[in-house]
Amino acid sequence: MTRVINFSSGPATLPESVLRQAADEMMDWQGSGMSVMEMSHRGPEFTQILSQTQSLLRELLAVPDNYVVLLLQGGAIAENAIVPMNLISRTGHADYVVSGNWSLKSMQEAARYGQVHMAATSEAQGYNCMPALSSWALSAHPAYVHFCSNETIGGVECHWTPDTGDIPLVADMSSNIMSKPIDISRYGLIYAGAQKNIGPSGVTLVIVRRDLLGHATAATPSAFNYQLQADNDSMYNTPPTYAIYIMGLVLQHIQREGGLKDMEQHNLVKSDVLYDFLDHSSFFSNRVQRSDRSRMNVTFFLRDESLNTEFLQGAEAKGMVQLRGHRAAGGMRASIYNAMPLASVQKLRDYMFEFEKTHA
Amino acid sequence: MTRVINFSSGPATLPESVLRQAADEMMDWQGSGMSVMEMSHRGPEFTQILSQTQSLLRELLAVPDNYVVLLLQGGAIAENAIVPMNLISRTGHADYVVSGNWSLKSMQEAARYGQVHMAATSEAQGYNCMPALSSWALSAHPAYVHFCSNETIGGVECHWTPDTGDIPLVADMSSNIMSKPIDISRYGLIYAGAQKNIGPSGVTLVIVRRDLLGHATAATPSAFNYQLQADNDSMYNTPPTYAIYIMGLVLQHIQREGGLKDMEQHNLVKSDVLYDFLDHSSFFSNRVQRSDRSRMNVTFFLRDESLNTEFLQGAEAKGMVQLRGHRAAGGMRASIYNAMPLASVQKLRDYMFEFEKTHA
Repeated sequence: MTRVINFSSGPATLPESVLRQAADEMMDWQGSGMSVMEMSHRGPEFTQILSQTQSLLRELLAVPDNYVVLLLQGGAIAENAIVPMNLISRTGHADYVVSGNWSLKSMQEAARYGQVHMAATSEAQGYNCMPALSSWALSAHPAYVHFCSNETIGGVECHWTPDTGDIPLVADMSSNIMSKPIDISRYGLIYAGAQKNIGPSGVTLVIVRRDLLGHATAATPSAFNYQLQADNDSMYNTPPTYAIYIMGLVLQHIQREGGLKDMEQHNLVKSDVLYDFLDHSSFFSNRVQRSDRSRMNVTFFLRDESLNTEFLQGAEAKGMVQLRGHRAAGGMRASIYNAMPLASVQKLRDYMFEFEKTHA
Repeated sequence: MTRVINFSSGPATLPESVLRQAADEMMDWQGSGMSVMEMSHRGPEFTQILSQTQSLLRELLAVPDNYVVLLLQGGAIAENAIVPMNLISRTGHADYVVSGNWSLKSMQEAARYGQVHMAATSEAQGYNCMPALSSWALSAHPAYVHFCSNETIGGVECHWTPDTGDIPLVADMSSNIMSKPIDISRYGLIYAGAQKNIGPSGVTLVIVRRDLLGHATAATPSAFNYQLQADNDSMYNTPPTYAIYIMGLVLQHIQREGGLKDMEQHNLVKSDVLYDFLDHSSFFSNRVQRSDRSRMNVTFFLRDESLNTEFLQGAEAKGMVQLRGHRAAGGMRASIYNAMPLASVQKLRDYMFEFEKTHA
């Protein structure tokens, strides 16, 4: 068995130890005589898995007591609708900060449920930066202000926590959750599809401040009503049991590795390997404003784009896959989430160095 | 490793060969060098898995060309909202046939999106039967008529296909899909959570006639807009990739076993083992009208209910778990979906026989 180095932006590479444990336990989870996939979600075995996973989420992220942790379905794209369905009726409108394709999509979807106001955008800069807080023009009494903490397509990350005063801050953290410590108390709501840093696709993490519950519109499907799901411990409908189990294993792995402070250090070192190389290359370049470079998705371009295919084929020949940039951005993208080892990032850097030497 | 006999109503037991293959392929799917969980949903490997799964669904169920097959998230409880969001605006109201807790829940949820009319109910009979077609009092021009083809709680199955003329028939088939051949052309829409007969929880099958697409209300989340998902081959949002992969393995297993005709025969034999025993017992009884007995969920009661705990403990001691009936119904329930072997059902029957002999 040869494992590839998988730079996919998500679903993405997972820790090998997690996959090995999942394989070992597939036919018989810890003496229960069944696979996690076969367990009644209301039985004692899965109840234990769910509660361990929730506890680990709370512990690793230091979630304050006045927040609920929900595990839902549909990913961030579903949440783009579910968030306004649950929150916007408080005032009828909401503000959105647009730093790339994902936050733009969030804003467009929210417009089905109330008035949306674009408080700031970096469109004029080709989405190569996070709009500075000083440029955020908030409307009067928005139900919340929404932003995306990491735009996977451009490779733009917000490295600071916006201060929106009393207005609840909502963050799509799908692609950088668990990559570093965050101060949950600064947010009204955080959501994240699991398939980058915390598990497989099919489970969505929502962390919401309790006082924001109870404002869902009548058209909100019960399965996506935060209050109902909070009252039912995320079991109002049958949860995605196996995805939650894998998320739990990933969280245990993060804990063993030292928690979020260590993850952050690890991610800084890894991404610097690539950014340092890019900054010294005249052949490859990164176009993101230096202060807003993503630690998760390193985007880069070849000076001569006619060499793109050769570059990708050469990478594949060395077992490095999924380096092509998103079709909306072009170029290349190396997604290097928590589970990507430093050695794999160094291998990519070495390949880029060689490629430059032979093609520059 | 000792595997239990798991009578859970869902998530439920899966074929051992499926679990074994999943374990074998966990670290490296067919030489790709990655787990299915790690694959980009737009990469060539997962695209192949998705298209094979869709093809198998179409082949096994003989889905006509004018129907689309969607793989979504949220299970049947989410579909209770998503179906009316997508269909009810055609006329503004819909009819529901209520044969138990699940179809009642479907009707209650639909009332958020339009006028609902209860066309028939077996509530007066304690939900122990399927309301006869002659008793269905349809309203004028409903957008659709909804029923549940198998109520897992009561153990009531509809063994005939309702003829609603030109009015689209919508069926919640979560708990008996793939247990026997069905004539898809008689339905407007069929939906099913996967976690009984076709896979793990976290993926929902929707089969919908093309001419019913395009009527979603403005409040329908894009991720749950059938037209959008049909246009995007169920990839408008990131699909639950691993759950779809397991579903594909289950479908391959069904195909190897001979397809739906053989499944039906197998399920008839299995359920008859229990019903024949119940009909000859004066200690155990089934309360469902004979013509409507479920082939999937065999419910039964002990004459002396003070022996319930002893019965359950004795079963567990023999490796048979999850026999307690749903809290809304009481008594016992043996869920014996496709993947439950005949020998396991016979073992339960033998235990019941012994228990009766020693306790009657």
